[in-house]
Formats: sequence, C-alpha cells, structure tokens
Amino acid sequence: MKYCSDCGASVTLRIPPGDTLPRHVCASCGTIHYQNPKIVVGAIPEWGERILLCRRAIEPRHGFWTLPAGFMENAESTAEAAARETLEEACARIEVGDLFTLISVPHINQVHIVYRATLLDLDFGPGEESLEVALFEEKDIPWDDIAFRTIALTLRHYFEDRRRGSFGTHNASIALPPAATVP
Amino acid sequence: MKYCSDCGASVTLRIPPGDTLPRHVCASCGTIHYQNPKIVVGAIPEWGERILLCRRAIEPRHGFWTLPAGFMENAESTAEAAARETLEEACARIEVGDLFTLISVPHINQVHIVYRATLLDLDFGPGEESLEVALFEEKDIPWDDIAFRTIALTLRHYFEDRRRGSFGTHNASIALPPAATVP
Repeated sequence: MKYCSDCGASVTLRIPPGDTLPRHVCASCGTIHYQNPKIVVGAIPEWGERILLCRRAIEPRHGFWTLPAGFMENAESTAEAAARETLEEACARIEVGDLFTLISVPHINQVHIVYRATLLDLDFGPGEESLEVALFEEKDIPWDDIAFRTIALTLRHYFEDRRRGSFGTHNASIALPPAATVP
Repeated sequence: MKYCSDCGASVTLRIPPGDTLPRHVCASCGTIHYQNPKIVVGAIPEWGERILLCRRAIEPRHGFWTLPAGFMENAESTAEAAARETLEEACARIEVGDLFTLISVPHINQVHIVYRATLLDLDFGPGEESLEVALFEEKDIPWDDIAFRTIALTLRHYFEDRRRGSFGTHNASIALPPAATVP
C-alpha cells in the first residue's frame, strides 16, 4: 500500500498512538488502513462413500486437486460462502453441514474454514476455475496431487473421523513449510 | 474506496471479466481491490466455575460487558489472536483450548470466533480498552449489559453446554436485528 484509498495522498508505515503494530497511515487525512487476514471457505461434498474434488484450472496449483473453496465475500455467512464456491467451481448444489476444520495459515495471512456437506444430486461439472470435477472413494484420493496443505489436512481428518464413526471439529495452524525456513 | 492504494489514481466500481460482483478497479494500473470480511477472535477465560469478562472503555458499546476479543492481525493464528486480545484487554494470561463458536455477521462483514480458555493465574486487570475486568459465576452474568449479540449467544451456548456436561463447537449466522429492517 502506497496511497490512501480515501484521499489519494501518500501513506507512511508507522505505529499509531495507542497501537502496538505499524499501520499504513495517511499523511494527509490521517486515515489508518488496517490489513487483516482473509477467510477461505470450502466444503466436503459427500455422495454416499464418495466425496467431490475439483482439479484446478487456475494458478496457484494449476492441475492439482482440491475441495471446492475460495475467498469469502462481504455480506455472506461462512456457510453461504461454502455453498457459493461449490456452485461456482463444481456447478454442484449442496446442503452445508457441520463445521469441520478451521486452519490458520499465518505466513499468508489466511484462515481456511471447511464444512462437511451433502451433495444434493449428481448434476455437477467443472466451473470456470476447474478443469474437471469428480467423486472419489478414499482409496482413489490423489494424495500426491492435492493442491494445498490445508486441504490435505482436512481430508486426512475426514477419513480418520469417518473410520472412527464420529466427526469432530478440527482446529489447527499451519506453519511455513520446513524447506522455506532454510536461510 | 476512491483511490488506488497502489498507484493513487481513481478507482471505479465495476464487475471485472470472469467475476460476478462489482469490485473497485483502478482505471490507471488495472489493480482489482477486493474487500473481504474481517475476523474477530476472542476467548472465554475460565477460572473454576467463573469466567472473565471485560467492561468496554471504548466505542462501540462503551460501558457494556464482553469477552476479551478483537480483530485478528496478519501473521498470527486464530488461537494466538485469542491469547493476544486477552492479554491486551484484561492483562490476563490464558491457555487457549477448544474452538467454541464461529458466528458470521454478514451485515457488518465480520466473522466472530471464540475459544474456550483456561486462565493461568489471577493476576489480571483492565487494559487500555477496558474499564474493569472481573470473574463472574453464571448467576451473576450481566445479561442485559452484554455488548454484542455474538458474545451473548456464545455465553448462552457456554452455560447450556456446561450444564449438559459436554462442550461442542457452535456455528451460526446472525442476521440484521429485526428493528433495523423496519423501513
């Protein structure tokens, strides 16, 4: 951020009075521009023993598989976001169920939230951001080709809980991958 | 938003190609400025049968009681945010426990997340944003003076679950108050 989105003047990075962190502050109108984590919401659409995955048609992770998920929009609930993203990416209608995972990803300023969901019919297919959409049994999950660590962790919890016969809600925080911490 | 925070030129509100919602788009450099919900994170600090509440020294809801909570910052996890806010508002150290409520508030573009927590000692007191901080038994909770509906809902779930002897994770969405929908 270089310019004030309210008045167009230059912003400087400094700690406002009473605050503890540097913020982008407008030198002209004084507006403090806070920057906060974004929420990504997704669903695990279930059809009997199978779940729906999408293969990504966009970067990052073009060609890799993921659950339908995306950035939450203003003026919607997290559950509405899960249903909207599933409709957009998999052209699929779901009934959103229980909250399943809430995973912080501090190094990219995101929080990923995934719901269990029931697929309402088999009339699905790739939306604009997907190359293909398919139902997978556990034995066929493409573990080596899952796009994101939060999604892989969510899927591992899902099949563990299913085998145990009881679904919980899982909270976690994912750190920077070890390789990236090597100087 | 009136000006591009990257280049300082004017932005216009329009639907970018491939998108479905109007965004602030820079007429000069083309940057699309997305606006997304913010996350508020809090804790229910427990000390035996009592829980800690803070009376607000700031607007909104100056003078009303609430759980320690505030906007999540970049580069932290939700659990870290709960501990930080509790330290800032109640000068209290906690061990963050299970995720307890996740409540969307679409009409103000927020998602409120509250954790159960264990107060580690009785060395607490009002931070800069609190008038006073105190421990409450259920019978003494100031129900008529709770600052926010998400906090009141969280407290109701908390005492219901405690009576039942089993704490769950509660997901909800809070709509605009009925009075505010009267034209």
